[in-house]
Amino acid sequence: MSRELPPRTPRFSETIMTQHVLPPDTNAVGTAFGGVVMGWIDVCAAIVAQRHTGRIAVTASVDDLEFVAPIELGDVVVLTGRLNQVFRSSMEIEVEVEREHVATMDRTTAVRARLTFVNLGPDKKPMPVPPLVLETDADRERAAAADERRRERLAKRSSRR
Amino acid sequence: MSRELPPRTPRFSETIMTQHVLPPDTNAVGTAFGGVVMGWIDVCAAIVAQRHTGRIAVTASVDDLEFVAPIELGDVVVLTGRLNQVFRSSMEIEVEVEREHVATMDRTTAVRARLTFVNLGPDKKPMPVPPLVLETDADRERAAAADERRRERLAKRSSRR
Amino acid sequence: MSRELPPRTPRFSETIMTQHVLPPDTNAVGTAFGGVVMGWIDVCAAIVAQRHTGRIAVTASVDDLEFVAPIELGDVVVLTGRLNQVFRSSMEIEVEVEREHVATMDRTTAVRARLTFVNLGPDKKPMPVPPLVLETDADRERAAAADERRRERLAKRSSRR
Amino acid sequence: MSRELPPRTPRFSETIMTQHVLPPDTNAVGTAFGGVVMGWIDVCAAIVAQRHTGRIAVTASVDDLEFVAPIELGDVVVLTGRLNQVFRSSMEIEVEVEREHVATMDRTTAVRARLTFVNLGPDKKPMPVPPLVLETDADRERAAAADERRRERLAKRSSRR
Amino acid sequence: MSRELPPRTPRFSETIMTQHVLPPDTNAVGTAFGGVVMGWIDVCAAIVAQRHTGRIAVTASVDDLEFVAPIELGDVVVLTGRLNQVFRSSMEIEVEVEREHVATMDRTTAVRARLTFVNLGPDKKPMPVPPLVLETDADRERAAAADERRRERLAKRSSRR
Amino acid sequence: MSRELPPRTPRFSETIMTQHVLPPDTNAVGTAFGGVVMGWIDVCAAIVAQRHTGRIAVTASVDDLEFVAPIELGDVVVLTGRLNQVFRSSMEIEVEVEREHVATMDRTTAVRARLTFVNLGPDKKPMPVPPLVLETDADRERAAAADERRRERLAKRSSRR
Repeated sequence: MSRELPPRTPRFSETIMTQHVLPPDTNAVGTAFGGVVMGWIDVCAAIVAQRHTGRIAVTASVDDLEFVAPIELGDVVVLTGRLNQVFRSSMEIEVEVEREHVATMDRTTAVRARLTFVNLGPDKKPMPVPPLVLETDADRERAAAADERRRERLAKRSSRR
Repeated sequence: MSRELPPRTPRFSETIMTQHVLPPDTNAVGTAFGGVVMGWIDVCAAIVAQRHTGRIAVTASVDDLEFVAPIELGDVVVLTGRLNQVFRSSMEIEVEVEREHVATMDRTTAVRARLTFVNLGPDKKPMPVPPLVLETDADRERAAAADERRRERLAKRSSRR
Repeated sequence: MSRELPPRTPRFSETIMTQHVLPPDTNAVGTAFGGVVMGWIDVCAAIVAQRHTGRIAVTASVDDLEFVAPIELGDVVVLTGRLNQVFRSSMEIEVEVEREHVATMDRTTAVRARLTFVNLGPDKKPMPVPPLVLETDADRERAAAADERRRERLAKRSSRR
Repeated sequence: MSRELPPRTPRFSETIMTQHVLPPDTNAVGTAFGGVVMGWIDVCAAIVAQRHTGRIAVTASVDDLEFVAPIELGDVVVLTGRLNQVFRSSMEIEVEVEREHVATMDRTTAVRARLTFVNLGPDKKPMPVPPLVLETDADRERAAAADERRRERLAKRSSRR
Repeated sequence: MSRELPPRTPRFSETIMTQHVLPPDTNAVGTAFGGVVMGWIDVCAAIVAQRHTGRIAVTASVDDLEFVAPIELGDVVVLTGRLNQVFRSSMEIEVEVEREHVATMDRTTAVRARLTFVNLGPDKKPMPVPPLVLETDADRERAAAADERRRERLAKRSSRR
Repeated sequence: MSRELPPRTPRFSETIMTQHVLPPDTNAVGTAFGGVVMGWIDVCAAIVAQRHTGRIAVTASVDDLEFVAPIELGDVVVLTGRLNQVFRSSMEIEVEVEREHVATMDRTTAVRARLTFVNLGPDKKPMPVPPLVLETDADRERAAAADERRRERLAKRSSRR
């Protein structure tokens, strides 16, 4: 468990999850329950983190999660998770949830989320995250935007306390 | 279902949920799974919204959710949900999750979250939220902070697109 | 884990749980499934016991559990658990389940239950329960009624065997 | 749904359920969670009721449920449900839960419960239960004991209010 | 755990499971979800295996599982599992799923399945299965058919690779 | 819902599902429970079928499902579902389950399965499946092998009855 992992690209840890919206996933008005979708997003992001670090990572925060379209009973839902940027012992991960309409196969974005995960060592304390190798221009843009959001978050937290 | 509800205070819709952390709620390292805790937070906030409006409300966004301390197997967890402010057809709700250590009964904040819910009418379209009557200075401070966050969020979204 | 806990009042361990009745909680006629409600009651009582003793307690018996009104899909349900009396290594706990109608916010009692829990030591054997300090007249009445029920139960069991 | 059903014996509706105790069924000390076992008992009794009446029946009360031995992870658990007696629109059902130790196949009684179910008509109101034909001496003894318990219960309730 | 078990008959390990089809078990068209029924079949077969060997056994394959009639919300479902034949460290188990219509109590076969389980020793490696004593002609026919299917399976696998 | 769908290739309906093996998914020896994995396989195949037909499809049979390596707590599991061939109103779908070891990211095949799904019309009766366009040599080989298996299955069933 303690061996060094090679640096990895965002593509290496990209994660695709497909879910079918079943009755226990829905609320009293027949749309997918917010908490169920959040659970899927958290699992998807946890797998991205684990693929990058080769270890268990835990959710530190949900920085922004927006429901842009309802998800309904019977829909097929596709989650795509990507590692935007790594920091000392944490990572910013982005998850997009698309719903795929059964009859037409049209895909529309239903939820967008950004989460921060922390890399835990065998002693359950934060430990350094392996470096992220940015390959494409899109990789670099996402990493720069993540750096900017982190600066804002840290500024907001220090001003809040 | 269509009758007018009287204006209500934050105290009216305050919601306390108590949960026991059981094996299915935990991950491979024995702490409560992020997605499970998010599910509890979403249910707690949904009840706050429903108590204020008398209708089904749905999650529009999780604006900020921060895990500040781990929650462990066997812990008793207390969630407190409060309505911070109402807008035209949406509401900002705050949920604090405290863990209570079995042996010592000490309570520590484990998670803090703020969510936005939308009030849905019988046609499943957004409809106006009943007014919120602010009683105490604490109520007024929380509402003012929520107004400020909403301004920031709207500004950020308009600049982003 | 072995230190003495101070005597505690019924108020100290009082537990409020709020649940939202979702589709997986309902049976084929759209009301909450008996077994699901019993599960909530057992968790609520287990938390009361654990708050009083600072240890894991296990269900010894359900002495009386009565469904007085149906609970329906979409209802918000509030459970209140109270410690009635402590015996050598067991405790009588009372749980009241109220349903809150979404539109009117009326609360009606839906289920009443009394359960006995046993306090387990580190060896998983019964161990003494810390004393219960009765503060109010209502506390004393509930404890006296619990004493009376215990006498009846013991008499019935000894006559049965 | 409205046709008359012929009178049925206790043997006709006897129900055997076998369950395997899996990790999600257990609490923090590795024994089956009280609420999970109550859920199984409720399903078993509901099937007995439904087999006798040919309709949905709902739980009216748990009159007595006693955990006499712990149930552990990996155990096979056998529930046997029997109709003791029918009243105007309700039925007394007995459920015995036995645990079967994996290695030795010894069976020991783990839980004993008696529940009352109500027979619901298409309008969700109580309706008469078809008669119960008592075949054996054991059937008659169980029915007589159920009649006696019902008298006690009614007496206790009338004195309580 | 290491003592020898006596040889056992198919009757000894026969397993009856009764399930009630509830909303979370159904798909978007109101029939029981294939994966849920497969889960019940797997548990039923695992109990048969465990009753014969006195140990944990794990699923090696589902050799044939056919849905012959739909199972619907509210149905009572009865699974019967039988040990057909034992091989060196594996067993062929047959599970029949019957649905029982609520109002008429008619039973019809809904699913038929045959599975192979492997007997695991304390080191989690396959270990010999205790002999099966065939008592009746039906036992002998089922065992002979299982022997024949095993020959076909092995032939097919060796030709496939 | 009744409009014609264009012919589709196997690539069009290919489905990737990623799952994280959590405590509730495991049995008493810490490996993923057979029935849980079967449930994931069934969902994956159902999505393949639905993507090809634009309608709900239901499981007709599991023709062959083999566990070739154990799946353990904490593993990331990737399911890949592919449409092998279409028949009049049914489809053969293949699902491969790979486990990805957390620390090394090695992937090994854990389960291989082939299932048949039936395409249901609005009247819940079987209806024709849209044609499958075979693009590559691999597509054609898989379709030919599926045709051969179907011939064998039909021959076996006709001889069995």
